[in-house]
Amino acid sequence: MSAALLPRGKPNPWETQGRKQIYRNPWLLLEEHQVRTPAGAAGIYGVVRPHQVAIGIVPLTANDEVVLVGQYRYPLERYSWEIPEGGGRKTEDPLTEARRELAEETGFTAKRWRLLLALSLSNCLSDEQAVLFVAEDLEPGAASPDPEEELEVIQVPFETAIDAVFAGEITDAMSVAGLLAVHTQRRR
Amino acid sequence: MSAALLPRGKPNPWETQGRKQIYRNPWLLLEEHQVRTPAGAAGIYGVVRPHQVAIGIVPLTANDEVVLVGQYRYPLERYSWEIPEGGGRKTEDPLTEARRELAEETGFTAKRWRLLLALSLSNCLSDEQAVLFVAEDLEPGAASPDPEEELEVIQVPFETAIDAVFAGEITDAMSVAGLLAVHTQRRR
Repeated sequence: MSAALLPRGKPNPWETQGRKQIYRNPWLLLEEHQVRTPAGAAGIYGVVRPHQVAIGIVPLTANDEVVLVGQYRYPLERYSWEIPEGGGRKTEDPLTEARRELAEETGFTAKRWRLLLALSLSNCLSDEQAVLFVAEDLEPGAASPDPEEELEVIQVPFETAIDAVFAGEITDAMSVAGLLAVHTQRRR
Repeated sequence: MSAALLPRGKPNPWETQGRKQIYRNPWLLLEEHQVRTPAGAAGIYGVVRPHQVAIGIVPLTANDEVVLVGQYRYPLERYSWEIPEGGGRKTEDPLTEARRELAEETGFTAKRWRLLLALSLSNCLSDEQAVLFVAEDLEPGAASPDPEEELEVIQVPFETAIDAVFAGEITDAMSVAGLLAVHTQRRR
């Protein structure tokens, strides 16, 4: 374990005085906490807790294309091109979930996998975590997407995907972070 | 306007048949929609709608340091080092909100600003949007943080911040995307 690059953080200045469940569905839990804020005031904090960890994969082909998945994102009310993503069970190894998700959404299996990044997606409002992998040495197969999803799968040159990030055609935070992380690792 | 890099998306395969407000606090709204899914089944969709747009700034000093802000993130239950961030009113120009947020949290004002990226932070669960800027030619001043926040402000070499991303010491999605975007733009 190497020395930390950034200073150690300070202790928790919040005090939790109570919590109640507001809402639960198959995907998330919403809690409202009664808190004492860092300023010492009484207040509330609404915390969104997804049941699953978000899993994302940057799948790279032998001729340096990246596999992207397109789908209409209901909360955004628009179509979104992204890296393959899905929910992973918190009780499972994230890599196991990533292999399953890649195969289900795209049909691809990969011989080489490596961990890329861990992310906190929206740390003001939720505890949602994401884990990103790079998948290489891809072999095609039959996809078996969730019947609730309507997906398109395409392959584009990796540098086109980077262009698409800066053109605003890829805006999903996991996809942007994953693609730029691969680019950064190549150029350092 | 240049030609699109990625295919045009397909139409909305979801049908919204009803919606009700489940919860509202000063920061977010939670709705539950009655939907017909792309597979044609009846279902529900819980949508989290933050009231504000997330604003993030990558502040770069003349000797290539980046200004980072540390704070304990209540939903994560841990300390987090991030680029300066805050909520921006949707009725205001995001750049105006970014200038205000940078000055409030760090005291810095900047002579040069540019738009870096727009992000969707958690597009399965919420419609939360983020806008990221780069701020350069910084001038120090007095910070005036929200009394509910307890912030530390540091400056680290830009490449140290990139190392911290890959070491897992910076995990906030907006920060990771913003720092890697600046790195990518420099190396292309």
